[in-house]
Amino acid sequence: MFFQVLDILGTIAFAISGVLVAMNKRMDPFGVLIIAFVTAVGGGTLRDIMVGVEPVSWMRNMTFVYVIIASTVFAVIFRNKLKHLRRSLFLFDTIGIGLYTVVGIETGLVANLHPIICVALGTMTACFGGVIRDILCNDIPVIFRKEIYATACIIGGFTYFLLRLFLDDQNYLFVIAGFVVITIRLLAVKFKISLPSLYKTEA
Amino acid sequence: MFFQVLDILGTIAFAISGVLVAMNKRMDPFGVLIIAFVTAVGGGTLRDIMVGVEPVSWMRNMTFVYVIIASTVFAVIFRNKLKHLRRSLFLFDTIGIGLYTVVGIETGLVANLHPIICVALGTMTACFGGVIRDILCNDIPVIFRKEIYATACIIGGFTYFLLRLFLDDQNYLFVIAGFVVITIRLLAVKFKISLPSLYKTEA
Amino acid sequence: MFFQVLDILGTIAFAISGVLVAMNKRMDPFGVLIIAFVTAVGGGTLRDIMVGVEPVSWMRNMTFVYVIIASTVFAVIFRNKLKHLRRSLFLFDTIGIGLYTVVGIETGLVANLHPIICVALGTMTACFGGVIRDILCNDIPVIFRKEIYATACIIGGFTYFLLRLFLDDQNYLFVIAGFVVITIRLLAVKFKISLPSLYKTEA
Repeated sequence: MFFQVLDILGTIAFAISGVLVAMNKRMDPFGVLIIAFVTAVGGGTLRDIMVGVEPVSWMRNMTFVYVIIASTVFAVIFRNKLKHLRRSLFLFDTIGIGLYTVVGIETGLVANLHPIICVALGTMTACFGGVIRDILCNDIPVIFRKEIYATACIIGGFTYFLLRLFLDDQNYLFVIAGFVVITIRLLAVKFKISLPSLYKTEA
Repeated sequence: MFFQVLDILGTIAFAISGVLVAMNKRMDPFGVLIIAFVTAVGGGTLRDIMVGVEPVSWMRNMTFVYVIIASTVFAVIFRNKLKHLRRSLFLFDTIGIGLYTVVGIETGLVANLHPIICVALGTMTACFGGVIRDILCNDIPVIFRKEIYATACIIGGFTYFLLRLFLDDQNYLFVIAGFVVITIRLLAVKFKISLPSLYKTEA
Repeated sequence: MFFQVLDILGTIAFAISGVLVAMNKRMDPFGVLIIAFVTAVGGGTLRDIMVGVEPVSWMRNMTFVYVIIASTVFAVIFRNKLKHLRRSLFLFDTIGIGLYTVVGIETGLVANLHPIICVALGTMTACFGGVIRDILCNDIPVIFRKEIYATACIIGGFTYFLLRLFLDDQNYLFVIAGFVVITIRLLAVKFKISLPSLYKTEA
């Protein structure tokens, strides 16, 4: 129940981020809806088709479909006021990647995959909705260029497998891993930490 | 039999639209063939991998493979004369999206999915070949920006589920739904109807 | 054993080509790793999800995951010296497409698909990692525009099915088909052969 509320908050934040990017590209209402949808469910869809969980999750859970449609309508109508919600949206988005990372890891565990693959699936679930959003909008995916985002998911994922050596309770582990992702992301944004650059002069 | 002829006409139109976009980008013969292929089968492929129908449909039906290859060769050779065929191609394309919408809905019904998901699958089947074509050609997908196209599929799809409350005959329902898609698309193009803009000044 | 060495050499070359393209776009370390990964496994992943082999191959074989990570670290550190390795990398890459073509054909044969589909799967395995790399980097895929690359895979694939009419030994056939791909690619690059242009004046 508690997890479901978090999951819905994350979905709302992802859908709204899709709406904002799509409207920035001046897409029509249909385009805006599709981008909102893809941002919210794209990462999980990619995870499911690679692991072989089909029909993919969102096709079997109408809650998310309704949440995404409602968030899109809300974001389109109140788009001029969304800037006042920036802090909440950032928080929801951060909760979203924490939770999506954990959901992705769980999918990998259920399919008996190697820990590194599970971490990759968690990161994919959290980050690839945004990647597909950016590709559909004809941009280079933003997470490949800046910000600690995927890195938080990767560290959270490895924390899960590290702590599993000492702890038994799966739920407890999931909560800790999610918190690690969220904390790293919040700290990275607060203190403007980014990955070390590979290049001598910055573009 | 009648449906198969329509299906082939739709495939021809989709493949030729791929050839025209690819040649506009000055691709080489291999690139042109791939774009033609992707435009014709991309939507159905995405639908099949999301629902779990694998190997995907076109891999099990050589007719479409041959039709796409033949259409590509034809379109490359007669590209300067295709403008005289513009009306026929538009008609074939419109028949194509009507039929593809219905095929997508049927896939969803067979997999026991919710009506909204079925409509989404129908729209995806009809529209996402063009979306993948545009991404491979490095454009923002045209259907996200203008034209009643996806909207016709969505309305046709909901018509199907609405009429199903009153009618029993599946085939009859499919024909009506397909016709609704085709009619809306034809009227929208004839009267230059597009979705209401979300923006005050047009780009 | 011999095949596995070739496979690893191909994977190294593909991953390094991803690193070079990603660094050219000034991506951060995470982006570089993802592009290396996608270039190396993208074609096989697409093949597997279309045919229904899930979880996809690389998720069940950690060797490749380690090879890709190691190649990425190596390529990032020694990027200024990679030009001295250009010949080796080109050779590895060429070995890679020869081998990947054969692996793709085999996947199709195992799933009982038509020879033309098998050739398409072989070509997809060899070429679509690069296509996805280019899309993520916001370029029109290079193989759609120039170079004999996919064409070599297609010819090698048809050679396999042609020779199968006369020969029985599967392994022997695979080796020949792989060699045909490699030879055509080497000759095409050496003699600067490309596909005939479809356009009167070259762009």
